[in-house]
Amino acid sequence: MARKFVCTYDAPIVETKAGKLRGFQIDSTYVFRGIKYADAKRWEMPTPVQPWEGVKDALNYGYVCPLVDAPKPSTGELLVPHRYWPEDENCQYLNIWTQSLDRNAKKPVMVWLHGGGFAAGSGIEQVAYDGEALSVYGDLVVVTLNHRLNILGYFDVSSLGEKYWNSANVGNADLVAALQWVNENIENFGGDPNNVTIFGQSGGGMKVSSLCQTPAADNLFQKGIVMSGTTDRDMFSIDLSDVLPKLMEKLNVKTGEELAAVPYRPLIDAYLEVVGRRGAMAFGPKPNGWYLGEALFAGFSERQKKTPLMVGSVIGEFLGFGPGLKNRKTATDEEVREAVGKFYGMEHADEIIAAFKKAYPTSNPLDVLVIDTVFRPAVKRYVTEKAKYTEAPTYSYMFVAEMPIDNGKAPWHCADIPFFFHNAEMVEYCNFPGSDELQEQMASAFVNFARTGNPNNPSLPEWPAVTPEDEACMIFDVKSYVGHNHDNELLELCRKYAPNFNIFENIKVEH
Amino acid sequence: MARKFVCTYDAPIVETKAGKLRGFQIDSTYVFRGIKYADAKRWEMPTPVQPWEGVKDALNYGYVCPLVDAPKPSTGELLVPHRYWPEDENCQYLNIWTQSLDRNAKKPVMVWLHGGGFAAGSGIEQVAYDGEALSVYGDLVVVTLNHRLNILGYFDVSSLGEKYWNSANVGNADLVAALQWVNENIENFGGDPNNVTIFGQSGGGMKVSSLCQTPAADNLFQKGIVMSGTTDRDMFSIDLSDVLPKLMEKLNVKTGEELAAVPYRPLIDAYLEVVGRRGAMAFGPKPNGWYLGEALFAGFSERQKKTPLMVGSVIGEFLGFGPGLKNRKTATDEEVREAVGKFYGMEHADEIIAAFKKAYPTSNPLDVLVIDTVFRPAVKRYVTEKAKYTEAPTYSYMFVAEMPIDNGKAPWHCADIPFFFHNAEMVEYCNFPGSDELQEQMASAFVNFARTGNPNNPSLPEWPAVTPEDEACMIFDVKSYVGHNHDNELLELCRKYAPNFNIFENIKVEH
Repeated sequence: MARKFVCTYDAPIVETKAGKLRGFQIDSTYVFRGIKYADAKRWEMPTPVQPWEGVKDALNYGYVCPLVDAPKPSTGELLVPHRYWPEDENCQYLNIWTQSLDRNAKKPVMVWLHGGGFAAGSGIEQVAYDGEALSVYGDLVVVTLNHRLNILGYFDVSSLGEKYWNSANVGNADLVAALQWVNENIENFGGDPNNVTIFGQSGGGMKVSSLCQTPAADNLFQKGIVMSGTTDRDMFSIDLSDVLPKLMEKLNVKTGEELAAVPYRPLIDAYLEVVGRRGAMAFGPKPNGWYLGEALFAGFSERQKKTPLMVGSVIGEFLGFGPGLKNRKTATDEEVREAVGKFYGMEHADEIIAAFKKAYPTSNPLDVLVIDTVFRPAVKRYVTEKAKYTEAPTYSYMFVAEMPIDNGKAPWHCADIPFFFHNAEMVEYCNFPGSDELQEQMASAFVNFARTGNPNNPSLPEWPAVTPEDEACMIFDVKSYVGHNHDNELLELCRKYAPNFNIFENIKVEH
Repeated sequence: MARKFVCTYDAPIVETKAGKLRGFQIDSTYVFRGIKYADAKRWEMPTPVQPWEGVKDALNYGYVCPLVDAPKPSTGELLVPHRYWPEDENCQYLNIWTQSLDRNAKKPVMVWLHGGGFAAGSGIEQVAYDGEALSVYGDLVVVTLNHRLNILGYFDVSSLGEKYWNSANVGNADLVAALQWVNENIENFGGDPNNVTIFGQSGGGMKVSSLCQTPAADNLFQKGIVMSGTTDRDMFSIDLSDVLPKLMEKLNVKTGEELAAVPYRPLIDAYLEVVGRRGAMAFGPKPNGWYLGEALFAGFSERQKKTPLMVGSVIGEFLGFGPGLKNRKTATDEEVREAVGKFYGMEHADEIIAAFKKAYPTSNPLDVLVIDTVFRPAVKRYVTEKAKYTEAPTYSYMFVAEMPIDNGKAPWHCADIPFFFHNAEMVEYCNFPGSDELQEQMASAFVNFARTGNPNNPSLPEWPAVTPEDEACMIFDVKSYVGHNHDNELLELCRKYAPNFNIFENIKVEH
């Protein structure tokens, strides 16, 4: 059936600080794509866009940041449906979906920070990042954005000149500029600049937590959601102290200006030659006063202490990308025991299985073979540390629902995104018996948290905030339930009996 | 509401000549993506893929052919929503959507040949190329594909060695290989190998008509649909006789093998330096016996004479990409007369307007300002010449429905594609009062033509085949109607009073 579509010379048009923008309306949603929120010279801090006369079209997604590697279609396309987009260094663009253009509407605002570490991805990289459904479902304003990544966003060339003083963090400075733009303009898109929730997954989750430790962003958001983006180790950094001189020698340049003029492709190629492949993901913000450093290392900022947070991960994460087990549905207890024993040692199999069943009573015990031990222990540490500050609540979650690919699979890194975005219909694997209810629980948690700072709502069992002694954890499944310190024992056993994975060296990452 | 989704270890699996493939099922549709239909060394003829043991996944779209220019998001994204995808020379992939995997089902098969001249595009380039809706609506098998383009598909290096004998046409040879694969395998996907319709738009339409003149494809398809892809001039060719030696000198290579080993990017960059920007689209098949040359130049092949064809264009084509007129809805007769007079000469305004109203009584007379005079006269000539051969019918159409962008616009090149694919819901501008009925008329015409070679069905007025004397033409609008030599006078006046556009030199093409 035909939808409502409007894109005339008169509507929808919104006034921003720099000038007028035309978007389009599809059914109840107003959409503005590819809004330039800042300009920036390479490695310099972003500046506001120049004002313009008349009306500019905001109908097309903007350029995404150039990526280290040419993208490849992987066997994981069914697991994480991608969208690719033209790349350009000039990539400070954001997109808006909203149900109202009334500046008195004051709807909650959710700003999505994409994943891909600090090196890859874009605001439209995954099919499930489309904001229309979440905006409709939650009656709120959804913003997605692109910003500088990898060597353009997180490479320290401050020794080459004063203007590069924050070059190690300009990727995050773009995020602050985007939030500044939202702060100054979102009212005209029906949003409440004083009710902004930043949310992100993987690298995007790390962006949320790093913005909580960035004083320049202190007044630009009120709440945060960190999805599969908490680590208690420094995942990305490698020693780059001698890289800059080697890089300049290789490129035969002498000054910062000359280096800043090298086109992206030869620059990143030379960088990879100097650093090696391990450098491809080795980017992230660096503490320098502008950015304080992650809370678990540098302590919680005053800002973060008073920020309601929702933090969680999924049961399989990177190990979930592997193929599902052929005998998942049919394995006997003895076969489960053997499989678990092969991985953790036969002598520990019973103990591990018992701990898993206690932690995740509705899950398939074979999931213990792909259980994530990278993000989850860090989530637990993060939320219980954060919970010491009682000015704002902290909510913990875990996503465990079995996905219907192969003969059933534990959910992988990113598998939860379409449910939280209320985009299950757009992503094939998100369709199975109970998936509608699962999506209702997950999206309603997000929407209620964005609205009030509390995710509780009638679709879910009572979900208490974490306390330092009790990590209440919403375990999202077709029938979700709340655990209390549910996997303390399991985590201890898994870490004790299984190798300590370094996900970026030991595990083939599919995307 | 959750859809049905199946992708287990057991289903859906289909046996092909080379081995087993696993796809997935979404609601009633079985989907197989990224099936390799051939292999090829650069500039050599394609060869069948090597057989494999076990089951291969066909879940991800395959690489698309490398493109001359890095893609840019244009202001036309709302007009032609794009999908970008990773590029690689090894790009012989096809995708299948089908309602049955029963080898006795024998559903009609439609094979889509994408546009972009012979230089650009891909089988998934436009959002509207998705085959699911057309497969469901028509209960038929839809195939889309990628093949070699531009310098990889249509560059004559035959002087460099026997194995390069058909290098000027290997892009089309990939198409033949794909049709061969369909011929040999589509039965297992529920398709009828003896009822194959090839259809394509723009360059894709030219691919359809060139395959009608390619003896190697004679038994591989039965019907053709040429959308906005008929020309009566050689649109792409420029004199390339001295390019090869200059290119080899620039790249400092001596042999075909050395040239074939140059990576794509330096190869195409050197080519553009030698030929200039005008070379970016200057690719297409060349008559050499394997390919006979276009019918309007070389005469109709015996194959084409007996091939039912549907041929048409849209009213605005490339001129339709411009912005809509601000006063389109409000212009008085006098304002229309002035605008038309400015373009065609004031002394001809009344004559032109009268001819336009006679030709297109339901259209806005301002559309005469953007009326296509490139494709349409060629369509007319092609269908009336083809109609001399009465072994198979020829149907003519024109798409004129006003599009709801700006204050209304004449349809542009590609604007018809979502309606024919039954994908109006996926593309914003395709939603307006009457769009459901328009889609029903257009998609049903395609489906009935694919089924029987005759597009007639109850949703449309009686649509006679063309005869040499009477070009019956289905004019698709919210209420479609049939013209008879409807624009003879108009075309004559337009060509007489207005400049003869060379679309690739005089008009800014938005994508």
